[in-house]
Amino acid sequence: MNSLLLTVIESTNTLASEATVANLEATVTAMNQQMQSISLTSHNVWMMVSTALVFIMHLGFAGVEAGFTQAKNTVNILFKNTLTPAVGLLTYGFIGFNLMYPTVEGNGFFTWSGFGIGLGADYIAETYADGHYTYWTDFLFQGMFAATAATIVSGAVAERIRISGYFIFTLLFVGLVYPITGMWHWGAGFLSQMETPFVDFAGSTLVHSVGGWGALAGIIVLGPRIGKYVDGKVIGKPGSSVPLATIGVFLLWLGWFGFNGGSVLSANPDAVSLVLVTTSMAGAAGAIGGYLSGYFALKRLDLGMVLNGILAGLVGVTAGADIMSPAESVVIGFICGNVVVFASIGMDKLRLDDCVGAVPVHLVCGTLGTLACGVLGQKAGIDQFISQLIGVGCYGFVAFTSAFIIFKVIDKTRGLRVSPEHEKTGLDRHEHGMRGYTLTYDE
Amino acid sequence: MNSLLLTVIESTNTLASEATVANLEATVTAMNQQMQSISLTSHNVWMMVSTALVFIMHLGFAGVEAGFTQAKNTVNILFKNTLTPAVGLLTYGFIGFNLMYPTVEGNGFFTWSGFGIGLGADYIAETYADGHYTYWTDFLFQGMFAATAATIVSGAVAERIRISGYFIFTLLFVGLVYPITGMWHWGAGFLSQMETPFVDFAGSTLVHSVGGWGALAGIIVLGPRIGKYVDGKVIGKPGSSVPLATIGVFLLWLGWFGFNGGSVLSANPDAVSLVLVTTSMAGAAGAIGGYLSGYFALKRLDLGMVLNGILAGLVGVTAGADIMSPAESVVIGFICGNVVVFASIGMDKLRLDDCVGAVPVHLVCGTLGTLACGVLGQKAGIDQFISQLIGVGCYGFVAFTSAFIIFKVIDKTRGLRVSPEHEKTGLDRHEHGMRGYTLTYDE
Amino acid sequence: MNSLLLTVIESTNTLASEATVANLEATVTAMNQQMQSISLTSHNVWMMVSTALVFIMHLGFAGVEAGFTQAKNTVNILFKNTLTPAVGLLTYGFIGFNLMYPTVEGNGFFTWSGFGIGLGADYIAETYADGHYTYWTDFLFQGMFAATAATIVSGAVAERIRISGYFIFTLLFVGLVYPITGMWHWGAGFLSQMETPFVDFAGSTLVHSVGGWGALAGIIVLGPRIGKYVDGKVIGKPGSSVPLATIGVFLLWLGWFGFNGGSVLSANPDAVSLVLVTTSMAGAAGAIGGYLSGYFALKRLDLGMVLNGILAGLVGVTAGADIMSPAESVVIGFICGNVVVFASIGMDKLRLDDCVGAVPVHLVCGTLGTLACGVLGQKAGIDQFISQLIGVGCYGFVAFTSAFIIFKVIDKTRGLRVSPEHEKTGLDRHEHGMRGYTLTYDE
Repeated sequence: MNSLLLTVIESTNTLASEATVANLEATVTAMNQQMQSISLTSHNVWMMVSTALVFIMHLGFAGVEAGFTQAKNTVNILFKNTLTPAVGLLTYGFIGFNLMYPTVEGNGFFTWSGFGIGLGADYIAETYADGHYTYWTDFLFQGMFAATAATIVSGAVAERIRISGYFIFTLLFVGLVYPITGMWHWGAGFLSQMETPFVDFAGSTLVHSVGGWGALAGIIVLGPRIGKYVDGKVIGKPGSSVPLATIGVFLLWLGWFGFNGGSVLSANPDAVSLVLVTTSMAGAAGAIGGYLSGYFALKRLDLGMVLNGILAGLVGVTAGADIMSPAESVVIGFICGNVVVFASIGMDKLRLDDCVGAVPVHLVCGTLGTLACGVLGQKAGIDQFISQLIGVGCYGFVAFTSAFIIFKVIDKTRGLRVSPEHEKTGLDRHEHGMRGYTLTYDE
Repeated sequence: MNSLLLTVIESTNTLASEATVANLEATVTAMNQQMQSISLTSHNVWMMVSTALVFIMHLGFAGVEAGFTQAKNTVNILFKNTLTPAVGLLTYGFIGFNLMYPTVEGNGFFTWSGFGIGLGADYIAETYADGHYTYWTDFLFQGMFAATAATIVSGAVAERIRISGYFIFTLLFVGLVYPITGMWHWGAGFLSQMETPFVDFAGSTLVHSVGGWGALAGIIVLGPRIGKYVDGKVIGKPGSSVPLATIGVFLLWLGWFGFNGGSVLSANPDAVSLVLVTTSMAGAAGAIGGYLSGYFALKRLDLGMVLNGILAGLVGVTAGADIMSPAESVVIGFICGNVVVFASIGMDKLRLDDCVGAVPVHLVCGTLGTLACGVLGQKAGIDQFISQLIGVGCYGFVAFTSAFIIFKVIDKTRGLRVSPEHEKTGLDRHEHGMRGYTLTYDE
Repeated sequence: MNSLLLTVIESTNTLASEATVANLEATVTAMNQQMQSISLTSHNVWMMVSTALVFIMHLGFAGVEAGFTQAKNTVNILFKNTLTPAVGLLTYGFIGFNLMYPTVEGNGFFTWSGFGIGLGADYIAETYADGHYTYWTDFLFQGMFAATAATIVSGAVAERIRISGYFIFTLLFVGLVYPITGMWHWGAGFLSQMETPFVDFAGSTLVHSVGGWGALAGIIVLGPRIGKYVDGKVIGKPGSSVPLATIGVFLLWLGWFGFNGGSVLSANPDAVSLVLVTTSMAGAAGAIGGYLSGYFALKRLDLGMVLNGILAGLVGVTAGADIMSPAESVVIGFICGNVVVFASIGMDKLRLDDCVGAVPVHLVCGTLGTLACGVLGQKAGIDQFISQLIGVGCYGFVAFTSAFIIFKVIDKTRGLRVSPEHEKTGLDRHEHGMRGYTLTYDE
């Protein structure tokens, strides 16, 4: 009996005390908190990097558009492209973010949670966005996207649109049309509530087609540039600087690492790295597509088609970058790279004068890529294809109609187009009193 | 009694052994070590990204300065801007880092911990910098900042300064003036030891105003370019390439993501993401400010003023990017964007010939932004305002005086200015035997 | 006895239950899993950033090569440089990655694990690459490297090579030569299995020298440009745009943050941040070297030599960026910066016409930097030096021979060089029907 008791006493000596375990529990709890903080830090770093990459796309657009348009209008296009992201960010902060991602319950079509950003301190909590990024990162990443739609328009309507008209359009398009329609899908609106939800991962439709529809409306309202279509012939208007356009395309490709990679909305390694692969493979395949169709259709090694082929591939894969295999992304990119060539030729046949090919790249390939999600990838199927058609139709109808009305109203009231004299001698001289290039030497 | 003992024995069977808990403790301890390592990794990634972004600002400055100066001096300005970060990094490694962040006790005014970097292996420990980045990251991030001050000067004094004089100035300014004065605040010197410490988050004063004061000194010592002020008129000297200047401004904005974002000195998600928002909003508001004042003062859509407005907003918000709300940052950016227009006009009235607007942007708006921290944001108050005045005064006095003396001594000894003949025909031809652009075709 | 028993009972009340500890163990196990996931996330973010940075090097090469070649061939060089990364990525995905990093046992000289990427789902596991990055990140990072070797060639052979011949070469060089030889060292092949393994951290030899040997072979097979060497004199062929070349060099320097920083194959803070410091210090010292030797050899402030000096320093330090001290990296960079000047002069003496200095930069300094790992740094020693010589010899022999044979076969069959008439009037007009720059104004 005594010995048994002694054994018990001895055995309790090898047992852990509650205090020790409580200490350990406290340590583990503290570690767990720190770990959630590190997790947020790590994901948020990627989202901030992605934000910076999307920002640089605005320089990419500036390069493409200034490079592909005539030297007499270089300052004008740069003026538009420099102010567009500025206007976009401010507008999105003032009104757009709360239209696109309202923090109040909505009806799925239109909701708004008021002016301004950062109104509630509780937004900035570690539970925001599943602990993957902060409220401020969210705003800035989305804000960098916002101005893109207007920037797409600026290239198409270049060389003949009045600055003031363009900026009125931009204010309305970026401030209202883009965020209201964007909410339909990304803001948990009706398109994401369908039985088979519409799919548009990073904005083939929400960003690129919307911008493309705006561009098409502008082109129709403005009409072609003087001397573009003469006696049934299409007259080339050589751009000021092919290197500048090339810089632009490479920066856009770079920016797409953030545009698509950040649209994972976390740094999830499997998801993001696959998205980067599908994105780059589609861009690469688009280059080959533009090269081949450019060669067969135009009988020359057309660098413009290679560059737009890259953009076409990138735009096309954007809707499904997260659900395509690399091989499928190559197929999408290659098709888009070829299509952009024939769409560009078709535009000219219809006397739709798009200075930089914005409609073929962003509207045509954005739509193609969105529909492709019903045909290829993890979600392919007839139900999905129908949902994609519905989404494409809704965005197309609202974006084109609203852009057309805005442009038409401006045109009928204060005038949308510069005078023929200004158009001929160039906008830089008249509106900006400045030349884009002055490479003369005093010799 | 026996049954009680049995109960005790049974109950001990449900108790945890010390060995199990000790094992668990060891696991937790190992996990904790790994977690600290992951934490350092995550923060350090952001600091390395920021370092890369600050590096690219040197290309931004090169673009702005080469774009805004005449084509006959393009190679010259690029020569200066390419060698400046190289000289800056080497100098900072050799002497500057140990002047600015001395590892020995100091008097708050001047301390130095010897030549060279990485002398003690214990620098490279996980406890360095609160475990947020390594010694090497620290050096490189700060080293990328260091050359910025001299780069700011290079644009202002372009088109007439001798290369050799500029590099002697750069060696002394980056090697001594910048790090010694930088220590006063960032190196825990006397300005950070005041009762109400001076506030300059990322260098509106320490970097930008210091560079701006150097620029002003250079402009005064050199005098204006030949033919700039003739019969009371200001003669425009159109820059070689507006696209190049635009590329430069966008790259500077991008770089500011690292300049301000990295100045948090960690990847703290709340702090960094707010800083990125205030920074970008100020840049955007600066663009609008430059656009409006440019239009009212100059009666044209002046892209130069929009571009400098962006830079002005960015410079202005830099002192308080971490303590301003987005709305306050918009106010600061907008004011700076307007001010830069009138400061540029004022400079010309005073016949101070600043080729790229470096003084209006970096000195005027750097000072404004620093003083704004006493008026707006979390630290606003009369005591803070006085501290800001003291800081601005100390940096202004020492930076301007030392730069003036350096330039004057060079001028009086070996000569600071090129010959009138070289200035007229351009520095590229005489000093570099090379043209910036040769776009002629053999047809 | 009773009281003793009571004490025992009391003491057991202060002991921890097995259930509590089991709960805690479960918590710790779950935390450990999450922590491994965060660790992977954090490292993978850096690898994705590095991938983006290596991508932008392709724009850097495009800038350098288009800037340093004549305006009449600008579109041609951009056409090559835009399609090269596209072809490179697709080829590497189709065949190269599985040649360079085969997933099956091999003989150390040639192994191949089949067409296409992502064939086995088990690649995408958290245990891939020590948990530092995913399979997809691995592919894309390596794929961005792959096209670099061909891009290096494109600059050297510019202004006279036929597009079709260049792309046949690129397909074979990027698709076969680069990955097969790359496997010898990075794919655990025979050079990494030697008693003293060959050392080439990020590719001074595997990437840069291999590209440089290809460039040399192309230069020899093609012969110099018409009018380059006349009556024993070297005739300058001024590049179209020095700013474009400068942009290119800065972007390459930026890209090297990822090229070398990502080659750590993790975000290990100590390792990566040291690599970034040695890389940048070598680039900076290379600038000074190019400046000084350029001045002494050419009697002018030669920006071309400063720019190539930077690249030379970066190429030189790449082999040992992880094993050099900052001081040693300065020595390597400075030597390379000087050497590139004399190597360029020597090339012209041998009538080897290299349009952009690719051979001096990538072949000469790549070789120098690789050999330097036997003389400087943590692995210096005679055994290491011999291993370096063996590696340099193996790569040189195979890369040069295979490139020479490819170029010679193309030359003898379909012709490698454009007609003299096309060369004189420029390739842009004939092959592309487009000009690089059209800066004329309608006045």
